[in-house]
Amino acid sequence: MNIAGVVVEYNPLHNGHLYHLQKTKNQTHADLLVAVMSGPFLQRGEPALLSKWDRTRLALQAGVDLVIELPYQYATQKAEVFAWGAVALLHEIGATHLCFGSEAGTIAPFLNTLEILSEHQEDYNHWLKTYLADGNSYPKATALAFNTLGFNMESLVDLSQPNNILGFHYVEAVQRLQSSIKVETIQRIKAGYHDVEIADQQIASATAIRQALFQTEKAPTQLEGLTPPFTSRMLTTLKLQGRLRHWNDYYPYLKYRLLTDTRVQLQTIYEAEEGLENRLKQKAQDHENFHTFMSAIKTKRYTWTRLQRLCTHILTGTTKKDMLSGQTRERPKYIRLLGMSDTGQIYLNQQKKKLKLPLITHVSGTSIPGLALDIKAQECYQLVHNASDVHEYQRTPIRYDRPSDTFLNNN
Amino acid sequence: MNIAGVVVEYNPLHNGHLYHLQKTKNQTHADLLVAVMSGPFLQRGEPALLSKWDRTRLALQAGVDLVIELPYQYATQKAEVFAWGAVALLHEIGATHLCFGSEAGTIAPFLNTLEILSEHQEDYNHWLKTYLADGNSYPKATALAFNTLGFNMESLVDLSQPNNILGFHYVEAVQRLQSSIKVETIQRIKAGYHDVEIADQQIASATAIRQALFQTEKAPTQLEGLTPPFTSRMLTTLKLQGRLRHWNDYYPYLKYRLLTDTRVQLQTIYEAEEGLENRLKQKAQDHENFHTFMSAIKTKRYTWTRLQRLCTHILTGTTKKDMLSGQTRERPKYIRLLGMSDTGQIYLNQQKKKLKLPLITHVSGTSIPGLALDIKAQECYQLVHNASDVHEYQRTPIRYDRPSDTFLNNN
Repeated sequence: MNIAGVVVEYNPLHNGHLYHLQKTKNQTHADLLVAVMSGPFLQRGEPALLSKWDRTRLALQAGVDLVIELPYQYATQKAEVFAWGAVALLHEIGATHLCFGSEAGTIAPFLNTLEILSEHQEDYNHWLKTYLADGNSYPKATALAFNTLGFNMESLVDLSQPNNILGFHYVEAVQRLQSSIKVETIQRIKAGYHDVEIADQQIASATAIRQALFQTEKAPTQLEGLTPPFTSRMLTTLKLQGRLRHWNDYYPYLKYRLLTDTRVQLQTIYEAEEGLENRLKQKAQDHENFHTFMSAIKTKRYTWTRLQRLCTHILTGTTKKDMLSGQTRERPKYIRLLGMSDTGQIYLNQQKKKLKLPLITHVSGTSIPGLALDIKAQECYQLVHNASDVHEYQRTPIRYDRPSDTFLNNN
Repeated sequence: MNIAGVVVEYNPLHNGHLYHLQKTKNQTHADLLVAVMSGPFLQRGEPALLSKWDRTRLALQAGVDLVIELPYQYATQKAEVFAWGAVALLHEIGATHLCFGSEAGTIAPFLNTLEILSEHQEDYNHWLKTYLADGNSYPKATALAFNTLGFNMESLVDLSQPNNILGFHYVEAVQRLQSSIKVETIQRIKAGYHDVEIADQQIASATAIRQALFQTEKAPTQLEGLTPPFTSRMLTTLKLQGRLRHWNDYYPYLKYRLLTDTRVQLQTIYEAEEGLENRLKQKAQDHENFHTFMSAIKTKRYTWTRLQRLCTHILTGTTKKDMLSGQTRERPKYIRLLGMSDTGQIYLNQQKKKLKLPLITHVSGTSIPGLALDIKAQECYQLVHNASDVHEYQRTPIRYDRPSDTFLNNN
């Protein structure tokens, strides 16, 4: 039985994601699709547009059979930790394949790069540090380090591309876990990860779709060609209800915490380093919305993403003690099931007794530290536009009986 | 020169308060009226309806010459501490008289009660503790203790009346400070402190006025007969702008903090005792507005006021370390000037060099711990409906040139 894993955020799920699922299924001959998906807060340090429950619903409608939550401890971290947590979960749930989208589009450069790094790790680290100290960004420093070590970049993967970076860390994680998961990649088409313009009629980046959603009144209908109909329907409804989430909605809480917490308290927050927390505290007084606040705190030293992640941790009150260090490779302690198709449910029933980690279907009464953080993050997330949100303690996984004419079953 | 002091909250300033000022001026032959006024959060543990700056404006228009802020460290505490801080400030600013409204209406019972307590403090404390342990409220236990000691209640003040309690503590504070301030009292007329119905055409309690304001659309005009015209005008404008403050406006922040702070963090908050913080944390999950939340946490053991004060301290993140203990009698360390009439300004210019405490006219660049707490409380207060609020760091005292036909000057 082939079980293909994907790592996703679905913020929101669009035609590019459908293409990814379709290709994954075809390429791996998968009988089952498992998605590990970020919870309420995403890798770039921002609240998801839609709740994890709504995104689970979309994933199931798009053809995914099992949706597993990537815990906050991994989901809101840099690529290495994010990838490590996601791959470890796919390994635990029994995935046989992992397929990711990348700019590279073939797996060989990833494997070559990994091999070189395994052999030249120390030298590479030395040069990487040197180039980072020179003020280069992480991706840039990576490329420079390879050049200095004398490797031909053509056989290597370009680690200045965001999806290549993630992909590289997936491949690395599989190796480090000594997992038998077979890794494949497909070429991303037509939209760059960070593109903000909608250039193509059928596929656009999630970034561009989100920007369009918040900019124009008619956005969801305009976006119909770029997202599957079930996404458009959901976006239209939530936009009408004013329930699409944006950092701005959370800014009052962030500002409140920055104003009322002491410097000592803020220093306990994960990623609060080098007095950055003081700068945030000071600037919060003068700004009424997240974007102008961010522009005020941004310096060359810190990327927008790094600052957004810090803001996320301040918002959720996540301390250094709560989080995994960026260096360690601690494995997840639980599998939080968010949704399943009928096929997914059958698989889980067979697999249940073989799982090494507890399978969490409802969080009430459990007491796993990482899970407590997920619950707290979700409670924070639900503080805004929560008119019809069910409390996290009352949630059970979404069940989805797939109609026989579903998109993926036709392929 | 006679300088009469009053201790006020003006939430909002109404005809009863005008009557109090008029009587005070007549009875003490005052050349100058000084008001010590609570800042953004009040003695009953709630945000003021209007900002301290708007209330200062009303006080000046009503005839007050100097408005001094009662620091958060005193303003949000039980009667003893509240009264102590207020009287100590009046003493420092040079008040010769203090006049308060009370249910008793004459000063003799206050002095008698104080004399008895000075002599029988130990016995009284013993019986007070006993009756409190039996589950009686503080006022009730007080009355029972006097009875047990064999004193005729008729010559004593009834300490089950809220304004009598405050008055008693004013008298006590004057004695303890060995101040030469002469204390007088006037009978409160026509409205009980806690009355929620508007029974009289000209004087109603501030509680009743606030309730009417939040209940009916036309409230400010209906209330015109009960408040001076400058109050009605301000209430009308602020109501139209949706800028009247209510605990409900702050509840999202309170809930957010209860959800995201750990139990250990919450235990550091002032008045968080006996696991009360856990009860609050648990109930916050289920409630979307302050009143239903309060109803859910209320037990016989704790008064509504006690719980509201705890909520205020949680909201402002005020720790046990930040606050004065309820037992000590620490004196204020500064005089924060909020407003002055031309007469008030002349007095201050003469007096300035004689003052023992720093006179704070703007907070920027100062670093007094209690003052930092006042600033933080004001920043919290301004988190809602803050469209045209000036930042606390940019504020200077309100100056008011009194027109010659002002109400009090005609009397």
